[in-house]
Amino acid sequence: MNKINLEQKLGLFSDYWSPKIVGELNGQLIKLAKFKGEFVRHKHDNEDEFFYVIKGVLKIELPDKEVTINEGEFIIIPRGIEHKPVAEEEVHVLLFEPETTLNTGDTTNELTKEIPERI
Amino acid sequence: MNKINLEQKLGLFSDYWSPKIVGELNGQLIKLAKFKGEFVRHKHDNEDEFFYVIKGVLKIELPDKEVTINEGEFIIIPRGIEHKPVAEEEVHVLLFEPETTLNTGDTTNELTKEIPERI
Repeated sequence: MNKINLEQKLGLFSDYWSPKIVGELNGQLIKLAKFKGEFVRHKHDNEDEFFYVIKGVLKIELPDKEVTINEGEFIIIPRGIEHKPVAEEEVHVLLFEPETTLNTGDTTNELTKEIPERI
Repeated sequence: MNKINLEQKLGLFSDYWSPKIVGELNGQLIKLAKFKGEFVRHKHDNEDEFFYVIKGVLKIELPDKEVTINEGEFIIIPRGIEHKPVAEEEVHVLLFEPETTLNTGDTTNELTKEIPERI
């Protein structure tokens, strides 16, 4: 039972769109990720998704609007809602999600990470 | 589906040891709290607990050691482990826990918040 320092963990990887597991509790995973560029539009049929911006600016394109999430802000995307994350510059995010969540949701392509790495 | 700004939400309350609900997903709650002073030693029989320090320094007394959690750090306390949070100065924390989690766990006293407020 040791504390986790987000900055230290963020220094351990540099690949984009590849969430790393940094904690686990109650069937949920705590993940850190770096985003840059445009991700694939997707949805999760059975999981709500949480994005907290640690550093940078994250835009999320939703069916009816675009939301800009700044440092110190989070958004919850309910299950079933299509969304497309876009990071014009590098963004660092904290994710809380069930163990079952696949990063690309109902879309499978070269960005899909079937088994996220633990760091 | 709107973004949540932690600083804005933290500005809405000033009471200590009284977590406020700011988000909900997958049967879990996102809460914000301010701590100052010593909390009651307690444990949660069925829930793991997550403390992320947004501002300040949080000490947690565990059965065999004390952990100091600084800004940008988190700790997960596994279910069944006794812990006593201590904040020498005001601390702002983000909590991520199941809807069933009671702040004082297996201990009930004047600090117990049966129904956390939503802000």
